[in-house]
Amino acid sequence: MASIFTKIIEGEIPAYKVAEDDKFIAFLDINPNSKGHTLCVPKEEIDKIFDMGEHMYLQLMQFSRKVAHAIEKSVSCNRVGMAVVGLEVPHVHVHLIPLNEMDDMRFTKKIDMKDEEFKALAAKIAENLNS
Amino acid sequence: MASIFTKIIEGEIPAYKVAEDDKFIAFLDINPNSKGHTLCVPKEEIDKIFDMGEHMYLQLMQFSRKVAHAIEKSVSCNRVGMAVVGLEVPHVHVHLIPLNEMDDMRFTKKIDMKDEEFKALAAKIAENLNS
Repeated sequence: MASIFTKIIEGEIPAYKVAEDDKFIAFLDINPNSKGHTLCVPKEEIDKIFDMGEHMYLQLMQFSRKVAHAIEKSVSCNRVGMAVVGLEVPHVHVHLIPLNEMDDMRFTKKIDMKDEEFKALAAKIAENLNS
Repeated sequence: MASIFTKIIEGEIPAYKVAEDDKFIAFLDINPNSKGHTLCVPKEEIDKIFDMGEHMYLQLMQFSRKVAHAIEKSVSCNRVGMAVVGLEVPHVHVHLIPLNEMDDMRFTKKIDMKDEEFKALAAKIAENLNS
């Protein structure tokens, strides 16, 4: 069965997209730890990040760095943190999380955001990707 | 003032080293979330990972992937997770954390390990780096 991320990539499920190229996509996490929490996902459905071939893994890391820089320009934070867990959705995803305190890394800490906020923030990050 | 990691790199503070090359070092976290929790650190003292130049950042990611594979061979886990936070020590460090459950990613969850266990595990991971 296609993962929820494959469904997003194929347009079956909507997402607040911030970046996309031929191999990777980035969209806002709809259950964010903090404002700007973004997922970077390879279009190929691979379960574990360290099972990716070195070349593709490094391309994902390169893509994630670009998105992180755009997030830094878009939200107020001390820095952007990174996490790869993968125990819940078996499709590689790099969490990029704007951090102000240690607790922002805790995945059971969630904030509420409205649809309009998500849309505006995704548009802002997408714009900052190219600036 | 030199960071605690620079002191480890310079041999002023001991560490359970698992890997080292001219640019990076990896050693066991002495306050591990789970057995095998390892830190990958650039020898150059840079605070934020996304401030690293792209080339050095990708080299760190490449180094971390090799260490992650050695950890996977050394401890029993569902997968190795990755995290970069950096709010506590202002010197880039990639956490590689063997995961069996979501809670293993929680940085306030710590396990106890004795000196002999750390030594044996570091030696095992170092050995698996080259296998």
